[in-house]
Amino acid sequence: MLIGRIKRLLLGEPLSNQMASHERIPKWKALAVMSSDALSSTAYATEEILLPLAAFAAMSTVWSLPICLAISALLVIVTTSYLQTIEAYPGGGGAYTVAKENLGVGAGLIAGAALLIDYVLTVSVSVAAGMANMDAAFPFLREHREIFCALVIFLIMIMNLRGIRESATVFAIPTYFFIGSFLLMLAVGAWKVLSGQVLDVAPVMNNMYPEISIFLILRAFSSGCAALSGVEAISNGVSTFREPSARNAKITLAWMAGILCVLFIGMTLLAHNFGIIPKEGETVVSSLARSIFGTTPMYFVIQIATALILFLAANTAYTGFPSLASLLAKDRYLPRQLASLGDRLVFSNGIFGLSVCGAALIYLFDGDVHKLIPLYAVGVFLSFTLSQSGMVRFHWRERQKGWISSLIINAAGALTTCIVLVVVSVTKFSHGAWMVILILPLVMIFFSKIHHHYLAVGKELSLIGVQAPGNLSKLHHTVVVPISGIHRGVIDALRYAISISDDVRAVYIEIDPDATERVKVEWNKWAHEVPFVVLKSPYRSVVRPLLEYIDDLEQSTHDDMLTIIIPEFVTYKWYYNLLHNQTAFMIRTALLFKRRKVVTSVRYHLHG
Amino acid sequence: MLIGRIKRLLLGEPLSNQMASHERIPKWKALAVMSSDALSSTAYATEEILLPLAAFAAMSTVWSLPICLAISALLVIVTTSYLQTIEAYPGGGGAYTVAKENLGVGAGLIAGAALLIDYVLTVSVSVAAGMANMDAAFPFLREHREIFCALVIFLIMIMNLRGIRESATVFAIPTYFFIGSFLLMLAVGAWKVLSGQVLDVAPVMNNMYPEISIFLILRAFSSGCAALSGVEAISNGVSTFREPSARNAKITLAWMAGILCVLFIGMTLLAHNFGIIPKEGETVVSSLARSIFGTTPMYFVIQIATALILFLAANTAYTGFPSLASLLAKDRYLPRQLASLGDRLVFSNGIFGLSVCGAALIYLFDGDVHKLIPLYAVGVFLSFTLSQSGMVRFHWRERQKGWISSLIINAAGALTTCIVLVVVSVTKFSHGAWMVILILPLVMIFFSKIHHHYLAVGKELSLIGVQAPGNLSKLHHTVVVPISGIHRGVIDALRYAISISDDVRAVYIEIDPDATERVKVEWNKWAHEVPFVVLKSPYRSVVRPLLEYIDDLEQSTHDDMLTIIIPEFVTYKWYYNLLHNQTAFMIRTALLFKRRKVVTSVRYHLHG
Repeated sequence: MLIGRIKRLLLGEPLSNQMASHERIPKWKALAVMSSDALSSTAYATEEILLPLAAFAAMSTVWSLPICLAISALLVIVTTSYLQTIEAYPGGGGAYTVAKENLGVGAGLIAGAALLIDYVLTVSVSVAAGMANMDAAFPFLREHREIFCALVIFLIMIMNLRGIRESATVFAIPTYFFIGSFLLMLAVGAWKVLSGQVLDVAPVMNNMYPEISIFLILRAFSSGCAALSGVEAISNGVSTFREPSARNAKITLAWMAGILCVLFIGMTLLAHNFGIIPKEGETVVSSLARSIFGTTPMYFVIQIATALILFLAANTAYTGFPSLASLLAKDRYLPRQLASLGDRLVFSNGIFGLSVCGAALIYLFDGDVHKLIPLYAVGVFLSFTLSQSGMVRFHWRERQKGWISSLIINAAGALTTCIVLVVVSVTKFSHGAWMVILILPLVMIFFSKIHHHYLAVGKELSLIGVQAPGNLSKLHHTVVVPISGIHRGVIDALRYAISISDDVRAVYIEIDPDATERVKVEWNKWAHEVPFVVLKSPYRSVVRPLLEYIDDLEQSTHDDMLTIIIPEFVTYKWYYNLLHNQTAFMIRTALLFKRRKVVTSVRYHLHG
Repeated sequence: MLIGRIKRLLLGEPLSNQMASHERIPKWKALAVMSSDALSSTAYATEEILLPLAAFAAMSTVWSLPICLAISALLVIVTTSYLQTIEAYPGGGGAYTVAKENLGVGAGLIAGAALLIDYVLTVSVSVAAGMANMDAAFPFLREHREIFCALVIFLIMIMNLRGIRESATVFAIPTYFFIGSFLLMLAVGAWKVLSGQVLDVAPVMNNMYPEISIFLILRAFSSGCAALSGVEAISNGVSTFREPSARNAKITLAWMAGILCVLFIGMTLLAHNFGIIPKEGETVVSSLARSIFGTTPMYFVIQIATALILFLAANTAYTGFPSLASLLAKDRYLPRQLASLGDRLVFSNGIFGLSVCGAALIYLFDGDVHKLIPLYAVGVFLSFTLSQSGMVRFHWRERQKGWISSLIINAAGALTTCIVLVVVSVTKFSHGAWMVILILPLVMIFFSKIHHHYLAVGKELSLIGVQAPGNLSKLHHTVVVPISGIHRGVIDALRYAISISDDVRAVYIEIDPDATERVKVEWNKWAHEVPFVVLKSPYRSVVRPLLEYIDDLEQSTHDDMLTIIIPEFVTYKWYYNLLHNQTAFMIRTALLFKRRKVVTSVRYHLHG
């Protein structure tokens, strides 16, 4: 099959179950795969802080410095909190698991819903921000931005469908490339500032703090909090680390937080010193790189490195979303198709679903990062708060060695992130946070409907408590064969029918009485032993008289089952099937919701 | 069912076969239904003549007068020709029938293809021109023109799906309203011209004929030939007239031609005298009506009448397209779904298909009449030529009373329309006629592929020449029941299986060996008499091991048939089915093209 071959070419050969345990990765690769989301936020967090400040007045952008420091402090608190989580949940302690086990199912589902939404936003925001940086360097890409975004998502999807170990190798290089080139930019920029070469390029800058409203500062702070998204990725994915996995995960998390702080504070400081103000069509990263390097090859290196890490940040979500969806599916809160591994040992349906949702959001928000960011932080801090609160309960209950200090750390984390959650919800409400606040309960209702359904089905099909009868009993069933004439396909269907039941009736729908007579003559020649029933159809419908006949038959025979055998023919090329009346399909559909009916197609295979 | 109720509300109750013969209409209604296409072309034919002339020089528009007279002469010739056709083919002599019966199948199919294309163009051009006239009067409609066009097509479709007699009553009033209001406009305009009131409004006009190229004149002529589209409608639809249908049809055709000439010549004369030059955003009808009446209520009456007749012109195609498609389908050149009457005694599939194609063309050509017109005339004159040539052969062969004069008339018609066909193809080639010239052979290939397929299938299924065996023989078949565990649905499927064959095997796909052991224990309790086969699946696929097993089984048993019984459950609400693994569907699809397999679903109906 062509589709099968394309699939093999893109995704590789199926992997057998025995290969599953090898799919674990070392620290340096894990840092690349799991921290690209957090690190890449450096590319837009500074810009998001500057935007509301600059919209008020250019000189108020000096406030970005204390705001950046506050967010960095928040990062340290959250990171320290998550180190405790990794310790307590070496099997991978996502907010869903932690909240569910410690605060109850309801809290777990809220966290799960928040995380699912955020994973989708990670894909959209990162890819859109990546394209924005490509646009700044290569303006000809701007016209079809959405299409390029969709293409990037498609490529990431394909790589993830191939499997995580292969992705890690592909993705490690660009992450280190980004860290290296950004550190170089910060170093060159710092040297230029310290050697006094930038005094003339930043005339509007001074270090006076103009008086602005607390609300504006909080709004800028809320926007900048996007920098914290993705911090939880490592603690969710502890189980993909090599042994000792908890220890390796903690070391990786600490490294990530350190690098993130350096890049974020460095970016914000330099943006201030170089007098960068956000402007239409150019990202802050692009402006800064241009100020430091001019439009030299090094400028393009920075832009490409930024775009690449942002595209890889989208990849973080591909580690988290499918495995969270699988957990929720195993707990029967999501469709069970999301629970099972595909033939490359990855959760293929989750990967596919995430890609579709991410691309849809980019399309709906015109691929504009600034429109997407306000939706982001609510979910991030909601899951932080629930996860840390869960950890507090965990320590209180378990009282393992050193539990008091761990409890204090997690309590501080929970309190801080809860305050930030309120701040973000209030200051960003009208900018889009309302959408997340609206969608969250809808997702919860969706979970609950699915859960209820699976439980009901399980109960209904269950044989628990039923006495086994010892032997299976046969059923009595009548067979009805609707026919439109006599041909080879009908003969085959009739032979099959008399093989499976002693009571077979052929049913002919009469639309033209002359045709009926001709068919009757043929019938006596070929199949006289099967009763031939003629049904009149004044409205030219085939299905309606047949259904009425079946209902009557059921009343009179009191069978256990009624089998309807439809003679069908299958054309050699599938599209030729469109040229034939879809009667079999219509009969099947009409009987789909009727009880105690078996619909069987006996197919005659044509060469034409 | 909700869909059924909506259908009844829009389309009315089903009509029984007995009502078919009542669906015939009197002359005055037939004129309204069948001539709206021809009459409405007055609304754009003058404009299409003026456009190429005015694009060259404003003063060359005076050439529109002789061109209009030439086209009117052509109309008289074509009409006279068609009067012969009605006489010879009282059953309805469309170009397809006439060409096929007299010139052979190939010529018939060319005519049929040309007509089908033209019916679609009639819908697109008429609706787009109607909206252009509405736009001119009500500029706020302009922004979403395509959507309004689609809405109009939808309404016409619904009315036609209800049935032709009802449509005729609805459509008669606006046709006469158009004829009346246009005649009034022509009269008032003529009075203003004759009383010398327009000398100052038309300063650029004089009656000198500037020298312009023959090619330009021919191009203007070709554009104006759009006026002739729809002339054949009455001769195609003779059978929908009341008895004596041939006589009534001829009278109606003559009336239609007369009215068309008066309106077309009148329009062109007045447009010249009032100095109307086509301009962006305003139709010539609108300019003329505004010149004659000013922006008074009467102006709006003219615009609405014009738009209405154009919308009704689209309706002409709804009489012709579905019945031609049905003829072609009965001759097995189109899918057989187009051949049968729907439950309102109309060819529902053809009506639906025409609507979709018409709307698609409007979308593709931005709802612009001038872009669509060049595609129009090729098909019109191709079918005229073939139809008239066929009539020549008819008279030569049949030699009925007065055949010589009829032959001469039809020969003159064939010759004239053939010349026009060449002129139109050449002068409009680069403007869009090439598309039709390209698509025609593709449609022919489509016809031929379909025809070949139906003949091959008929031959393959046929029992002609086969000796009837006297009695139907039973088949031997093995039953395979794939199961994923044991529950009520599986028990039902097994009971059904042992009822229809003595050789039943249950097949279990092992993904987790521990689960297999648990299922085996249950199996011995519930269904020990059915052999339990375990298939290993290292790649977690359910379908692949099953197919391999079935192939092996087939090799070893030498059965006539193999039945695969799939235990399925049906949820109470259809969308809940999406929550379950679609294994049954996948198995069915995988076996679709395998011979000697019967796939049966035994369904367990859930309450949940």
